[in-house]
Amino acid sequence: MIISEPTLIIDKERVIGNIDNMISRAKSFDTELRPHFKTHQSAEIAELFKERGINKIAVSSVSMAEYFASYGWNDITIAFPLNLLQISQINNLTKKINLNILVDSLYSIQLLSNLITHSMGVFLKIDTGYHRAGISFDDNEIDKIIKEITQSKHLEFKGFLSHAGHTYNAKGKNEIEKIVTDSYNQLKQLKNKFPGSIISWGDTPSCSMADNLDGFDELRPGNFVYYDVMQYHIGSCKMEEIAVVVACPVVSVFPQREEIVIYGGAVHLSKEFIAADNNFKLFGYVVKFEDNKWTLPINGAWLSNLSQEHGIIKMPKEQIKLFKPGDLIGILPIHSCLTANLLKDKTKLV
Amino acid sequence: MIISEPTLIIDKERVIGNIDNMISRAKSFDTELRPHFKTHQSAEIAELFKERGINKIAVSSVSMAEYFASYGWNDITIAFPLNLLQISQINNLTKKINLNILVDSLYSIQLLSNLITHSMGVFLKIDTGYHRAGISFDDNEIDKIIKEITQSKHLEFKGFLSHAGHTYNAKGKNEIEKIVTDSYNQLKQLKNKFPGSIISWGDTPSCSMADNLDGFDELRPGNFVYYDVMQYHIGSCKMEEIAVVVACPVVSVFPQREEIVIYGGAVHLSKEFIAADNNFKLFGYVVKFEDNKWTLPINGAWLSNLSQEHGIIKMPKEQIKLFKPGDLIGILPIHSCLTANLLKDKTKLV
Repeated sequence: MIISEPTLIIDKERVIGNIDNMISRAKSFDTELRPHFKTHQSAEIAELFKERGINKIAVSSVSMAEYFASYGWNDITIAFPLNLLQISQINNLTKKINLNILVDSLYSIQLLSNLITHSMGVFLKIDTGYHRAGISFDDNEIDKIIKEITQSKHLEFKGFLSHAGHTYNAKGKNEIEKIVTDSYNQLKQLKNKFPGSIISWGDTPSCSMADNLDGFDELRPGNFVYYDVMQYHIGSCKMEEIAVVVACPVVSVFPQREEIVIYGGAVHLSKEFIAADNNFKLFGYVVKFEDNKWTLPINGAWLSNLSQEHGIIKMPKEQIKLFKPGDLIGILPIHSCLTANLLKDKTKLV
Repeated sequence: MIISEPTLIIDKERVIGNIDNMISRAKSFDTELRPHFKTHQSAEIAELFKERGINKIAVSSVSMAEYFASYGWNDITIAFPLNLLQISQINNLTKKINLNILVDSLYSIQLLSNLITHSMGVFLKIDTGYHRAGISFDDNEIDKIIKEITQSKHLEFKGFLSHAGHTYNAKGKNEIEKIVTDSYNQLKQLKNKFPGSIISWGDTPSCSMADNLDGFDELRPGNFVYYDVMQYHIGSCKMEEIAVVVACPVVSVFPQREEIVIYGGAVHLSKEFIAADNNFKLFGYVVKFEDNKWTLPINGAWLSNLSQEHGIIKMPKEQIKLFKPGDLIGILPIHSCLTANLLKDKTKLV
């Protein structure tokens, strides 16, 4: 395959390293790994997990569950609040696989219990501080929801699921450890109150970095399979563990402006960026790319702006001399989940 | 079609209104409209242009040119700096259609002239102040580039193309008028020096708002077909001219937090936002959506955050009462080009 357009290059060896590391960590905490497949959304990458004994997964949409079910995955948690408008698709899935869904309101579970036709597992989403979806561990609706689940013919109560997305804003490992401890204490109280329930825990930063995840029954990190610049900045991974790069054609070189224009824009990389205080935006690190391998970031170079199809690289004069139109250059993405989603049909596993 | 997932709803009447308006404006300035199809990327929307007499278009990638060529469009400008790695695809296109490409360096044009096999038009990209791609109107490489083009067997020099992307940062109409005047003065000097050359001008803000575009031979706006919240903020359109909305399922309602969680995230809307000074981010306006129609934005409501599949809406208590899980709600996108690209396979023309 000749690379002539922005293409997601996936380093198989690094992916396997990242999977093996996370499997080891989960084992060391005596917890089960249910990796989240929203990052890669790829049956081919999924096989690398299967070869290593993984058979339970999480996804973030009904259509993703349908996709992986069609490739033989038969134990799937849709780790996204129940979308009542997709009940018929959910019913179809429950005929074929062991499906778990997620609820965070009595209203949804009451409607659901009247609409489903086959058995499925239900997790209750607990908000331990991220404040996206979920309800608080001390919300008195919890008893009513669980009662509704246990009284329903087809629903089986599985336990409590939480996603600590606020680890992405943590300043260093100590803050992450604090989030883990605080959240665990909340979830543990619920487990004590409802014996036999599972505590399912997610997010790549804490799953990659926390010293202790004992007591969580299940881990659902997703991003770790590829990692990215954001995870590197959080401290979840080393630069050498980032397993994907976007190979982009160089189309214009402006040595005097110290800028390179690449074919590679928001429709390939996403507009995710990391902001520094002084109006500086980082849309990706720039690496040399050759023979399907890439280097560490080029000193002083960064992806500074993106429009629909164009990217602007800032690069010092002495480095810019090495590039000309028609070359390929590599961009380490800020958020690999969004980049991989955009380049789903433009990938190369090497 | 039942809407159960985030879906781009396209209001045909508004699209036609926007097309008709832009056709009238182009006529009033005695300039030709070559609409940019990067926004909709849709053969179905393209037909609405064809029915109104448009037969020349611009696109931003070789693959988009291939797509529209396969639907019978045979006069296409790839308004993106030449990607030398796609010469073979470009050669294939030139066998079938009248293709114009864009260059901004002597290096690229020298390589190109040795590699092409059929005739094609060439525009020189002029940077009139946006500083993305292109060279300055007074760059002395221009003579050399045009000489190289005119001496080449298959290349035909067409003229000067500019995209004033800096109109997106303009504060009001006066600044936009100034950008148009300054740019026109630069391009006009080039036209005087190279008689018979075309001046091709782009960008939706100036094409929508400028009082006078006389003298430009060709206009290439793209976004105007749908408009969006960013264009509304710039002043390019009225709220009632925004022709697309993303219908999103409501999955969680939190009256006390004054927040609604929707199924609709960065993979549907893109992470484009408008920032205000006080750390406030606007990812979209929120509208009521029913029977394929939508209202003006709900007072005091906005899309305040996005993750991969989730969106968070802020909404005052008195409004939030009207919504429950399983409803659909509408989001007016910040940047319709990116949203339409993400939802290419999830659209409904109504």
